[in-house]
Amino acid sequence: MSDFRFPSRVQKLRERLTKDELDAIFISNGENRRYVSGFVSSAGYLLVTQNDAVICTDFRYTEQAAQQAPGWRVDRIGGKSDWLANLVNEFEIKTLGFESDDMTVATLERFKKALKENDATPELKPTSGIGVDLRAYKDAGELELLQCAIDIGDKAFEETAAQLAVGMTEKEAAWIFEKAVREQGAESISFETIVAIGPNAARPHHATSDSKLVEGQTIVFDCGARYQGYCSDLTRTVVLGKADDEVKRVYDIVLTAQLAAIDMVTSGMTGEDCDAIARKIITEAGHENDFGHSLGHGLGLEVHENPGVGPNAKGKLENGMPFTIEPGIYIPGWGGVRIEDVVVLENDKARVMSHAAKMSF
Amino acid sequence: MSDFRFPSRVQKLRERLTKDELDAIFISNGENRRYVSGFVSSAGYLLVTQNDAVICTDFRYTEQAAQQAPGWRVDRIGGKSDWLANLVNEFEIKTLGFESDDMTVATLERFKKALKENDATPELKPTSGIGVDLRAYKDAGELELLQCAIDIGDKAFEETAAQLAVGMTEKEAAWIFEKAVREQGAESISFETIVAIGPNAARPHHATSDSKLVEGQTIVFDCGARYQGYCSDLTRTVVLGKADDEVKRVYDIVLTAQLAAIDMVTSGMTGEDCDAIARKIITEAGHENDFGHSLGHGLGLEVHENPGVGPNAKGKLENGMPFTIEPGIYIPGWGGVRIEDVVVLENDKARVMSHAAKMSF
Repeated sequence: MSDFRFPSRVQKLRERLTKDELDAIFISNGENRRYVSGFVSSAGYLLVTQNDAVICTDFRYTEQAAQQAPGWRVDRIGGKSDWLANLVNEFEIKTLGFESDDMTVATLERFKKALKENDATPELKPTSGIGVDLRAYKDAGELELLQCAIDIGDKAFEETAAQLAVGMTEKEAAWIFEKAVREQGAESISFETIVAIGPNAARPHHATSDSKLVEGQTIVFDCGARYQGYCSDLTRTVVLGKADDEVKRVYDIVLTAQLAAIDMVTSGMTGEDCDAIARKIITEAGHENDFGHSLGHGLGLEVHENPGVGPNAKGKLENGMPFTIEPGIYIPGWGGVRIEDVVVLENDKARVMSHAAKMSF
Repeated sequence: MSDFRFPSRVQKLRERLTKDELDAIFISNGENRRYVSGFVSSAGYLLVTQNDAVICTDFRYTEQAAQQAPGWRVDRIGGKSDWLANLVNEFEIKTLGFESDDMTVATLERFKKALKENDATPELKPTSGIGVDLRAYKDAGELELLQCAIDIGDKAFEETAAQLAVGMTEKEAAWIFEKAVREQGAESISFETIVAIGPNAARPHHATSDSKLVEGQTIVFDCGARYQGYCSDLTRTVVLGKADDEVKRVYDIVLTAQLAAIDMVTSGMTGEDCDAIARKIITEAGHENDFGHSLGHGLGLEVHENPGVGPNAKGKLENGMPFTIEPGIYIPGWGGVRIEDVVVLENDKARVMSHAAKMSF
């Protein structure tokens, strides 16, 4: 087992199999595949039992799988689905978990049919959240990659902010960021960059448009970089020219709410508790109805993953979990302000991982 | 009905409902949603009956849906799944098709539970391929957008090819292309750019690396642009410096095979028949085992979609269908050659849509 690139991840997955009374789990989700095995590709499956760990992939990727995932047996699979039945029979699997949040109805039916035709009769158990549960906790290697992604995002944002100018379109501004991200070694952006000026910024998920930047209105800039698979996520709100009193007032509320949540969040708190810290401040400032999204979210191989940090997030925030803290206030017709940093819980407290400059008045 | 942005697409979907004996179809696939309604987003569903057409999406996108999809009723949905039951009851739906290739096992279970709890009892019928079948045929508006994507890809490739130089890495070359694509107005690349030099080019799906370009070896450059949703896909093989006789020999076989397929493909032929035209030439030249992928694929809102064009593609190629023709020869340790153009069948013959220059010796 010590041959694995990530032995403790395989170990934790196997502990979960025991807990969930599964002989094996069949992993179809690409990020979970990458996380557990180290094998990065657009196609392939993992089958993991207490004693065996197999990557099943087609001819395009077998060589690469063997390189990226030492310790794993690599089986070359074809278009037919009989290979799963063969593995089930080889390993004498009686209960087989599959990822019900990832597998489509049609794929499951195909496997069921092939299992039956090949006299493999495991009990198929839908599982939900095993991969994302494991992935919520980041080990030191992951935090290092995440920090690289965040540092690139911070730097690219600051370079971009320095170039923003009246008359530039939102799309042009996004493209400056995206070029900077790539030129600093990220493989890509981690999600579609959002640049929203004035009334556009009143929509938290505005689609970056040809609207032109003007003086005095808030510009919400929500952006991220992906580095070796890990996703950063940063939001800053800036103003070209002079910010008026209303901008300052709203910005100050959002920043106060954000800093309070960063300061007060502790491990063991639920995502709901953390959300409530910031939401209370925004509510008491008279903007109860203007913060229509969650305070934050976990991030890692996906830009949104566990833990949840919002009004209905019952799960606990624990040491080793990175997540965003991003309160906002959105006022239709006027605009919006959102400020987002990534923190990680360490020694029961939040350590801030992102460091792009914020506005000061 | 004339209010719809794409009335004939809704009409064809309704004809398909009749044919498949469905009262309604529930569309979860994002590209199918966009195709039928014009509504572009990361979240939402369509419910279509003979008389009704409803977009179901959350608060973030209701305003945008109403703008993008005239003629559709837009329902705002929340986190609970009871809204589907309400619609089923409102429209008295007895048989409800869903997209089994898109919907996950867990999502289907959630809807089933909510339907039951809300006394909605339609027969749920898995459907496969309805959206992709419709999308295989492109109307004039789609072909225009696809041509824009192709023109951008062609131009960006030619600009890139002119800048390729010994010592540049594959990744640097890909980035030149990607910048050019964006600067010419595409919203993004349509898939991860593949640049493969020498032995790397022997793998059809090489992951673009830090390998440096050298003289004399083949460079396979597989790239595309996305314009208003439509995806181009182009492959050219080039050589820096002088091509030796072996490069010329292999290139000539691949080009001959490609031009033969373009010249001889006719509407009514199956994807398999088309594939066989090129494969026969490569086989007869002694490279039977060196062309390990399909000859091509349809493309549109997705870079790979119907029709299939490969050894097992039984579906017919018809007028109005665009697809790629991209034979290749891959020789381990030496390299590879692939040449890819997009064609569209018109008046029973292929019209070539891509025009980037090819090598001539």
